[in-house]
Amino acid sequence: MSTISPTASIDPAAKLGHNVKVGHNTVVYGDVEIGDDTTIGEFCVIGEPVPSATTPLRVGAGSTIRSHSVLYQGSEIGSRLETGHFVLIRAGARIGENLRIGSYSSLEGDMRIGDFVRMQGNVQIGPGTVIEDCAWIFSLVTATNDPLPPSHVFSPVRIGAGAVVCVGATLMPGSTVGTGAFVAAGAQAKGDIPAGVFVDVTGEVKGPITHLIDLGSGTRHPWTRHFGDALPQDAAERVHELQEEMLAAAKQWRTAKTASA
Amino acid sequence: MSTISPTASIDPAAKLGHNVKVGHNTVVYGDVEIGDDTTIGEFCVIGEPVPSATTPLRVGAGSTIRSHSVLYQGSEIGSRLETGHFVLIRAGARIGENLRIGSYSSLEGDMRIGDFVRMQGNVQIGPGTVIEDCAWIFSLVTATNDPLPPSHVFSPVRIGAGAVVCVGATLMPGSTVGTGAFVAAGAQAKGDIPAGVFVDVTGEVKGPITHLIDLGSGTRHPWTRHFGDALPQDAAERVHELQEEMLAAAKQWRTAKTASA
Amino acid sequence: MSTISPTASIDPAAKLGHNVKVGHNTVVYGDVEIGDDTTIGEFCVIGEPVPSATTPLRVGAGSTIRSHSVLYQGSEIGSRLETGHFVLIRAGARIGENLRIGSYSSLEGDMRIGDFVRMQGNVQIGPGTVIEDCAWIFSLVTATNDPLPPSHVFSPVRIGAGAVVCVGATLMPGSTVGTGAFVAAGAQAKGDIPAGVFVDVTGEVKGPITHLIDLGSGTRHPWTRHFGDALPQDAAERVHELQEEMLAAAKQWRTAKTASA
Repeated sequence: MSTISPTASIDPAAKLGHNVKVGHNTVVYGDVEIGDDTTIGEFCVIGEPVPSATTPLRVGAGSTIRSHSVLYQGSEIGSRLETGHFVLIRAGARIGENLRIGSYSSLEGDMRIGDFVRMQGNVQIGPGTVIEDCAWIFSLVTATNDPLPPSHVFSPVRIGAGAVVCVGATLMPGSTVGTGAFVAAGAQAKGDIPAGVFVDVTGEVKGPITHLIDLGSGTRHPWTRHFGDALPQDAAERVHELQEEMLAAAKQWRTAKTASA
Repeated sequence: MSTISPTASIDPAAKLGHNVKVGHNTVVYGDVEIGDDTTIGEFCVIGEPVPSATTPLRVGAGSTIRSHSVLYQGSEIGSRLETGHFVLIRAGARIGENLRIGSYSSLEGDMRIGDFVRMQGNVQIGPGTVIEDCAWIFSLVTATNDPLPPSHVFSPVRIGAGAVVCVGATLMPGSTVGTGAFVAAGAQAKGDIPAGVFVDVTGEVKGPITHLIDLGSGTRHPWTRHFGDALPQDAAERVHELQEEMLAAAKQWRTAKTASA
Repeated sequence: MSTISPTASIDPAAKLGHNVKVGHNTVVYGDVEIGDDTTIGEFCVIGEPVPSATTPLRVGAGSTIRSHSVLYQGSEIGSRLETGHFVLIRAGARIGENLRIGSYSSLEGDMRIGDFVRMQGNVQIGPGTVIEDCAWIFSLVTATNDPLPPSHVFSPVRIGAGAVVCVGATLMPGSTVGTGAFVAAGAQAKGDIPAGVFVDVTGEVKGPITHLIDLGSGTRHPWTRHFGDALPQDAAERVHELQEEMLAAAKQWRTAKTASA
């Protein structure tokens, strides 16, 4: 396709970097800054205006935004963003480097996301959520924030660095997932989950993540040992640090458990 | 943007009120009536033709339909509709005033929805469902209708006025949620849930809604006491009536429980 | 509408059959073959290019692709495909005749799907999944493939012919659902579920499918007895064969159970 599709509608005030591609019919509003070497697919809305916004939508260099995605004015997104299709990012998100976010996932605004975070599809992240570096969030995970719905009480969720939240888990209001902790598929996570442990489908802490093993392959958590290579090279140092933290936390949990037994 | 985007495709037979805005590329078919002061975003399909439909799509005044939404011919929607993005409303829905419905939610047609209903994102409401005034339906809730799938048996769901259905709950075929009743996150709701009570994640009735309290803030159900202000001014009378009904139902449930104990 | 909307963007290399309709603004890329009598709605992306693809996107005759759907290059789809809105089919899917797939559902590529498969909305099927003929998959079902997320271990799911997977069920990595087996709403299905049995919400096998009955209507599984008519005429022979297999498997399970009791 041509660099900018002739059917795209680009506000002359929008600032597009070098080598930016824009697909058919995509609409780019004026208060937008797009980094170099970014590709935007068809039927996207980029910089959807927000009357109260005081900052533009900024998307870093080397990003890929797939078709039918909607990004609002007033969010700041690092380089190498990669979205699936039908992704929604509302205003007020501050997002680090190299977020990957799957199709049909939505970030409901006013949140903070670290570097190298990975989300699959159909994920819903409510306002106020904090997600730290290198966290993994699988399909249909929901991060909530109202402990007595509907109410004005606001109790958002924190997901620690390197944590893993599996398919269909719900992070209940005010819950925190510690560094490298693992939340099983379908669990309702509540309260404070310590670093380096896992909770099973009941939502209860069951042991250190080093007990999570796939017998067929011998693969064992923390995931950084066998899957750190899935992140880009410039994440390697952070991954290495995280692995040390996760192993130390898992060991500490085991030690405390033994001492209390 | 201009009132009607030059890239929108509007059938000349469509009836648009005063001060209607239509976004880029949106398609409006002919059998459509849109009330005054309504804003329709980009990439929408409005009045998707249905061969069997005998009535137009009607959308009341003061509505907002966000981008990438699809509304079929043959539904009647009151004033002040507000949709998220990627919303789908099929034919045969009769919807009251001021529905708010979140992104990725779908109303599968042939249903009745009262006034001031609130739905978050990723909600799926099956055909035949009845939802009464001021009900709250949170993310990923599904209202089903087939008790022995797949079959021709049709047993839809009813959600009472002021009821609250929390994130990820499934309303099983034929279930009814009483006035002001509360269904916890992740519950499978079955059978008839009385007015003014709550069911927890197990799907069992556990007590009157007045026992639902957020200790940190002292907030307590019914929600009308602390959150009625989230609805518009002209809902106030209905909310007040509902609160009386909810409190009476909760009290009645406690009394019956005490008598049977 | 006109046969090909003047606002559609059709690559001259694309091969469209006779009587193909293409809706407003839809983009059809070059490496695409669309069968006769197919209708494509508005705002679709057809044949999204995949650098590594060696085959075109092929869609069989008599298909209906609803608005806002995205189909990648490199998939082979039989005749009479019918999609909802916002459907996503990635590269490498081999799909039989007459798939029906609901709105917001995604097929994540590299999978094999038989004939006459039925999926509702919000279904997510991961890479590597095999789905056999006449299977029924309801809303929000997820077929996963990673037993120790995140990892490089790959353990996809198989869904047998005529099987039924109910709303919100999760098929855990490596699970297999036998011919005509039934997975209840909200279950986490694990391991090998034998042909002709059902698992309830706990994920445990509870009995033969012939014990699944709707008391009100007297309807009883296998579904082929009361719902085979929902499939087209040319499925009748396959449905009849399947019914024999399902009844035999259910009987065999009962016999084995009695013998071991």
